[in-house]
Amino acid sequence: MRLLLKNESVISVDNFSNSTLDERLMSHTSYKVLNIDVSHRDGLLSLQKMLEVLEDEVKIWHLAANSDISKSGQDPYVDYENTLGTTISAITLAKNLSASEFIFASSSAIYGNRTELPMQEEMEIVQPVSFYGITKLASEMFISKFLSKITSKVRIYRFPNVIGLPMTHGVFRDFYQKLRVQPESLQVLGDGKQKKPFLHVEDLIDAMFILNQSQSSFEIYNIGPNDKGIEISEIAKMMVKEFSPNTKILFGNSPFGWEGDVPKYSFDLTKSIAAGLNPLLSSESSVLKFLKELQSND
Amino acid sequence: MRLLLKNESVISVDNFSNSTLDERLMSHTSYKVLNIDVSHRDGLLSLQKMLEVLEDEVKIWHLAANSDISKSGQDPYVDYENTLGTTISAITLAKNLSASEFIFASSSAIYGNRTELPMQEEMEIVQPVSFYGITKLASEMFISKFLSKITSKVRIYRFPNVIGLPMTHGVFRDFYQKLRVQPESLQVLGDGKQKKPFLHVEDLIDAMFILNQSQSSFEIYNIGPNDKGIEISEIAKMMVKEFSPNTKILFGNSPFGWEGDVPKYSFDLTKSIAAGLNPLLSSESSVLKFLKELQSND
Repeated sequence: MRLLLKNESVISVDNFSNSTLDERLMSHTSYKVLNIDVSHRDGLLSLQKMLEVLEDEVKIWHLAANSDISKSGQDPYVDYENTLGTTISAITLAKNLSASEFIFASSSAIYGNRTELPMQEEMEIVQPVSFYGITKLASEMFISKFLSKITSKVRIYRFPNVIGLPMTHGVFRDFYQKLRVQPESLQVLGDGKQKKPFLHVEDLIDAMFILNQSQSSFEIYNIGPNDKGIEISEIAKMMVKEFSPNTKILFGNSPFGWEGDVPKYSFDLTKSIAAGLNPLLSSESSVLKFLKELQSND
Repeated sequence: MRLLLKNESVISVDNFSNSTLDERLMSHTSYKVLNIDVSHRDGLLSLQKMLEVLEDEVKIWHLAANSDISKSGQDPYVDYENTLGTTISAITLAKNLSASEFIFASSSAIYGNRTELPMQEEMEIVQPVSFYGITKLASEMFISKFLSKITSKVRIYRFPNVIGLPMTHGVFRDFYQKLRVQPESLQVLGDGKQKKPFLHVEDLIDAMFILNQSQSSFEIYNIGPNDKGIEISEIAKMMVKEFSPNTKILFGNSPFGWEGDVPKYSFDLTKSIAAGLNPLLSSESSVLKFLKELQSND
């Protein structure tokens, strides 16, 4: 939507495995949707065939990935294909169509369980602990190596926990669904002391545009709220207060919510703020904005 | 062959994209070959179906990968599928068949262009510069994360430059072919000052068996000759002396032989030697052994 408002023509490519069409977009004459799975070479080739006829300058926003990090730990193919495979296709497309810009949605997961906080873009030691983190890191490496000489502008954005509608995964969806099914008590995965930065998707999109403004050719930026995050126990309390005030909250024993969980992290935002990121973004306001949405959507 | 001599039953799985059947093995009753491409899920599933009927304990030696590092820099799919994809299939197979051992052929390429030498297994900063190195590193991460709780014995071996017959790629093949086609002069890729450890494949196989003897469940070992390597210019001189004494050797200007080349590296072998690796292995003796083979094969 934001690209359409900037008078760009937009072609969405999705395999709709975990998403639905946005009806508000469909009425735009500059908007097209292609239902193609680009996690393998065949998908890429059919997409490329369709795009080759375009005469416009091509900018690629590569946001495709597996989104359920806890589930994909059971099957290594999921992140291999959906998180890294889509990157291989996207960079091949960028080369073959001579794309002028390439924007990549990376993740805090590439840092892994670093004991020293906060995480900083230039850190040389990164130790992803989930298949998702491993394949996002490999994606960054492929992009850096392949596109830095080909594409005049490359941005790698490392996302925090992102919230907004529709919910496809994550702690809010987990709590929301549990409260519906069994309002007597809410079982939290892990001990509730996990603490992570949350950002509302609208603020995230703002940030992506802002950090794309500078002329420099290749940059990696952390994107997040300017704080150390919010505790999962705090989110449980806010959700219960909002949706089911009589629910008893139960905590587990493990510091990890699930296999591959990074229980605590925060970003160093020095570089992003210097490049224009809004320093007033906070986890709490993102959560409050999202709870309001959830409530009015209920 | 070495596994057959230990009375193991062996099933080779290969897509024969870059290899041929070894006739000496075919006469063994305990040897079978399956022509399957396991770089994707379909290949894995058909392999798994064939192996499920076996009642023996399963040990997996995962040696499958793209082997031409310089060529694969042009097409990101090659290492994605052949180097990482085969790993995804191999670890899935290890889980589904409850394999008791998993041996993985990794590479010095995962370290990348580290300025400090020598490279040591516990180094936390690794910066692979080729797609091959990136996907070998991602393979190691997938194996560590997925198999360390499933498979009772896992070995990750980081190989040096390996030489032996048949030659499928590498500097010896390059020189050998050039001398055949144009014996007047030999053009070396790069300035010839690249310096790397070379190990003969027979010594490599010895080392893999030796380092598999300890009982510990998960280990990463460098395997290589106990020296700082041999200069490419030196190899050029030895090849010319052996095959074409009147050839003039010409050097390029770049310190790199090709895009993604790591011009200089050496291994720290402290850990491997403590675990039984032969400390007398040398690059020079490996090269001399190989030149003799080449000569008698000529």
